[in-house]
Amino acid sequence: MTEYKLALVGFGGVNRALAQLIAERNERWKTELGFSLKIVGVTDLFLGSLINRQGLDAASLAGLPAVKGALAQLPGGNALALNEVVIKDSGADIIAEATFTNPVDGEPATSFCRWALESAKHVVTTNKGPIALHGAQLKALAQRNHVAFEYEGSVMSGTPVIRLARQLLAGSTINGFEGILNGTSNFVLTRMESGLGFTEAVEQAQALGYAEADPTADVEGHDVRLKVVILANELLDAKLNVSDVRCRGISTLTLDDIDQARQNNARWKLIGAATRQADGSVSASVEPRLLDNAHPLASIGGATNAVSFNTDLIGTVTVSGPGAGRTETAFALLSDIISLHQAAAQNRE
Amino acid sequence: MTEYKLALVGFGGVNRALAQLIAERNERWKTELGFSLKIVGVTDLFLGSLINRQGLDAASLAGLPAVKGALAQLPGGNALALNEVVIKDSGADIIAEATFTNPVDGEPATSFCRWALESAKHVVTTNKGPIALHGAQLKALAQRNHVAFEYEGSVMSGTPVIRLARQLLAGSTINGFEGILNGTSNFVLTRMESGLGFTEAVEQAQALGYAEADPTADVEGHDVRLKVVILANELLDAKLNVSDVRCRGISTLTLDDIDQARQNNARWKLIGAATRQADGSVSASVEPRLLDNAHPLASIGGATNAVSFNTDLIGTVTVSGPGAGRTETAFALLSDIISLHQAAAQNRE
Repeated sequence: MTEYKLALVGFGGVNRALAQLIAERNERWKTELGFSLKIVGVTDLFLGSLINRQGLDAASLAGLPAVKGALAQLPGGNALALNEVVIKDSGADIIAEATFTNPVDGEPATSFCRWALESAKHVVTTNKGPIALHGAQLKALAQRNHVAFEYEGSVMSGTPVIRLARQLLAGSTINGFEGILNGTSNFVLTRMESGLGFTEAVEQAQALGYAEADPTADVEGHDVRLKVVILANELLDAKLNVSDVRCRGISTLTLDDIDQARQNNARWKLIGAATRQADGSVSASVEPRLLDNAHPLASIGGATNAVSFNTDLIGTVTVSGPGAGRTETAFALLSDIISLHQAAAQNRE
Repeated sequence: MTEYKLALVGFGGVNRALAQLIAERNERWKTELGFSLKIVGVTDLFLGSLINRQGLDAASLAGLPAVKGALAQLPGGNALALNEVVIKDSGADIIAEATFTNPVDGEPATSFCRWALESAKHVVTTNKGPIALHGAQLKALAQRNHVAFEYEGSVMSGTPVIRLARQLLAGSTINGFEGILNGTSNFVLTRMESGLGFTEAVEQAQALGYAEADPTADVEGHDVRLKVVILANELLDAKLNVSDVRCRGISTLTLDDIDQARQNNARWKLIGAATRQADGSVSASVEPRLLDNAHPLASIGGATNAVSFNTDLIGTVTVSGPGAGRTETAFALLSDIISLHQAAAQNRE
């Protein structure tokens, strides 16, 4: 029986949901998945940090009050986020990185990933920043140190996308993809189809907790652009930077546009896409596209996300599912750990 | 570099497409997939049989004229389908079984699978009969003989379904599924939405090659029922027999039904479904269901297939793609071989 020691970096909704899953399911994972998880460290900018190499109680962590420095109230806890110490010196085998996405330079998450990989610790992350901005370097670093670097949750939370394409479509060539990769903007478009104006629809998304106080990253396509870079580099072997992706959001769409589309049996969707060109280069974009209602992405409504892969041997394969959510994203981290466990088993035997 | 020796059992469209893929791609598979394939035997009721342990030319096989006993025209060929000899004594490591589906007793395909597994040869198959009718026994037989028994293509051709659920959703519990699992009946329903009567829509499906001369198995749900048994037993750990699945087809749906649905923003779809009940038992059915247009399966049009998995940790995940096609189904066989190669590598190391 393998027991992985886990350090949680960033203790917001996602890693808290992971702690909750560990509290509830660790026992059955032993038989179902062949491993169990022991949390040996936690660090969070707001909550502070805590290390216990003997293992922390997952249920207590999951129920930790969300007040500044809360980890300092636990035995051995510290009001400061001793990130580097938790990552390098908590005895963890795996770092679960789930801090905020910084779309400018990917920090501090990129440094967290780098410290972990340099210390030969596996990294599982849901953070788009390090992958979109520094993915190639971090993957190379992981390879040099013979550890896993997995990030299924960086696109469409726990809905399998990266692994579906990489593992299950292996043997078929992916020539491109189109996706609805942001739930907030898709929710706004769906509400506009019910007659709500753009501003009212955004307000409703904010009221429901889908959209942030500043919805720019969602509605202007910046969030989708990061995901397009991740998928294009991963699935099409592209070497795109964020600035290589043309990006236009949905804020200029009017109710008239939506109505006119409906009259033509079509719908506006914010589509992130990339295509391999004849010369081998990859072109990528984020833009509102008018999709015929028969298009596999036209019917993806509300906060659901989806991506269609265009392949040479089996045509178009589409997967849809949640694009966000705490437990859904925590499942992505779990699926990353399952994947690295299988790879490790392969290397051990 | 691993070279697998392959015997093709049943040489209709699917295994012919596999031979064509081998002819075109074997070289690049060595680097991309880590193995190559050598065809050492072929057998087909209509075409006869042929063995060459040194390897047969895949391109010549793919181009074989579709005339009775054609394999007898090649050096060493026989006008008779020497199935047992080809399966047991051609020196094959893997048997690719792609004969016709017999929904009554699964024969002769089940015997072909049994002979292969008993001889400790891996089996990859696209045939619903052996899995739906004798899946548990054949799986046990494979396990006893330490060989793989893979059948991704038995449901939705090359679109990943079984492996998606089993591998990528591992860690989350699947509590049920709903699927559009027959392209012909879905094509007929889609055409009826354009105003065609049931009979005319079936005729059009026949003219386009979607429907057989006798469309009963497709439109009455019998084909879907086999797939529901396969998925329920595989993903919900059910022990269903075909007769456990309530089955009703689409032949009683009228244009009035279709129209009335449209007026209510809904659509009739032939849905194969299974659900785990509170007592742990699994109930399954095939029937026309009225789906609200917002349902993830409502927009699946034409010959496309799709299945939605209901999970505990990530809600509903849906995958859609081709449900038939020669190359699409041959890809399923290839994906099975990729999977058994990975498992074999794991056991070897």
